[in-house]
Amino acid sequence: MTASLTLVIGGARSGKSRHAEALACGTGLDRIYLATATAWDDEMRARIAAHRDARAADGWRTIEEPLALAAVLEREAGPGRTVLVDCLTLWLTNVMLGGAPDRAAEAVEPACRDLVAALPRLAGAVVLVSNEVGWGIVPDNRLARDFRDAQGRLNQRVAEVCDRVVLVTAGLPLSLKDVSR
Amino acid sequence: MTASLTLVIGGARSGKSRHAEALACGTGLDRIYLATATAWDDEMRARIAAHRDARAADGWRTIEEPLALAAVLEREAGPGRTVLVDCLTLWLTNVMLGGAPDRAAEAVEPACRDLVAALPRLAGAVVLVSNEVGWGIVPDNRLARDFRDAQGRLNQRVAEVCDRVVLVTAGLPLSLKDVSR
Amino acid sequence: MTASLTLVIGGARSGKSRHAEALACGTGLDRIYLATATAWDDEMRARIAAHRDARAADGWRTIEEPLALAAVLEREAGPGRTVLVDCLTLWLTNVMLGGAPDRAAEAVEPACRDLVAALPRLAGAVVLVSNEVGWGIVPDNRLARDFRDAQGRLNQRVAEVCDRVVLVTAGLPLSLKDVSR
Repeated sequence: MTASLTLVIGGARSGKSRHAEALACGTGLDRIYLATATAWDDEMRARIAAHRDARAADGWRTIEEPLALAAVLEREAGPGRTVLVDCLTLWLTNVMLGGAPDRAAEAVEPACRDLVAALPRLAGAVVLVSNEVGWGIVPDNRLARDFRDAQGRLNQRVAEVCDRVVLVTAGLPLSLKDVSR
Repeated sequence: MTASLTLVIGGARSGKSRHAEALACGTGLDRIYLATATAWDDEMRARIAAHRDARAADGWRTIEEPLALAAVLEREAGPGRTVLVDCLTLWLTNVMLGGAPDRAAEAVEPACRDLVAALPRLAGAVVLVSNEVGWGIVPDNRLARDFRDAQGRLNQRVAEVCDRVVLVTAGLPLSLKDVSR
Repeated sequence: MTASLTLVIGGARSGKSRHAEALACGTGLDRIYLATATAWDDEMRARIAAHRDARAADGWRTIEEPLALAAVLEREAGPGRTVLVDCLTLWLTNVMLGGAPDRAAEAVEPACRDLVAALPRLAGAVVLVSNEVGWGIVPDNRLARDFRDAQGRLNQRVAEVCDRVVLVTAGLPLSLKDVSR
């Protein structure tokens, strides 16, 4: 069993998580769902619960990790396993909001560097879900602009080390890269 | 003449309406333009008028229906006809704003379910235009987030029952699905 | 050497500028970098500087022109040369902000018309970078909506006269049009 890295990107409610789950199920391997969401209010809690209901908990082992993504991936990924990371956008949010408010952007680079360095070392299959957030008007506030920049850069760097990149729109996949090993 | 369902999606000012009109004209059938826009201020009124000017009223029969989309489609669609629905985004806006402000989201599910159930029963050609609205930063206010979620889910569900789905960017079409009957 | 016009579009931090630079380098011609950015605050100044660092100033001649884009292109483009315009979005911003605040939109049409008319007359290779900004929720304020409309229309018109249009997502190109002369 060779290793494989897949990035599934798309807008909000594009069906990217569902597509990523289908890819993970298609591997036929043991499945781990690595959830990066943290519930900081009721709306978020409801969203997380809905996601869980939607993924039909048949056969998935769920691990919740809001911050130490690279470390958990290095521990859990391996031959005979598929790890689905849902999603990089919530993880990046946690990283930015975890630091001091006036230097949210500074916390991002080391975390992203560690993640991007870890990915090519992983065994087994890993599927990462991430949002496209830079296709609108420039946001009014600085934090939103910083987040948009950080998310765009992260998607580029992760896409570069992945074997496959899929863009999902209205539930439909479009292959942007496929150099399966 | 077999039935066909086509979804044309894209961002604002992407040329998606013009592309949908070209598809409708290409069928060579009688053309009905089903406009879902309602003018609630001068800016909106100007937009509607501009759309009308742009579509060159040669041969189109126009029907305006802001809410009862499934019913009008079931009445008007038929063999030898093309119905162009422009657009699902304004229709969804009307559905959300038509209900009580604190439960805008609740009005959406029954309306979307009815529409998605009606589409596969239609005869003739139907072309639906809809916006992609989930590729930016998370909006500040709850209503915008609810709308974004509802629009994304609706696009997925409509795409699932359509034979063809086309994404338009800068006026240029990209086929996401084509299982022409 | 025949003329060629290429439009590279994408969201913020999509890698579109880097892709455009690679296309320009690939022509093997003398390279001119036509920068449309103007620094109106420190954040912007930092962005411009970062762009410059990122493009490795080996062999590029840089020209800064915030407004008179068509005139500079007609003067600088020519056989044996590649001109990279980075980017139409900042240029359009300058055009809109250069006029009276209450008629920003009015300044746009003549400027866009001049640019779109000039492009097919240019010799050599020209690569234009532009943002997709219409894939989010409708912006709250009028100026942002006007800008979104103007940018979408400009991208359509430029795409129409270009030989090649490339959409970049997460650093990965997707060809939307290729009718190389």
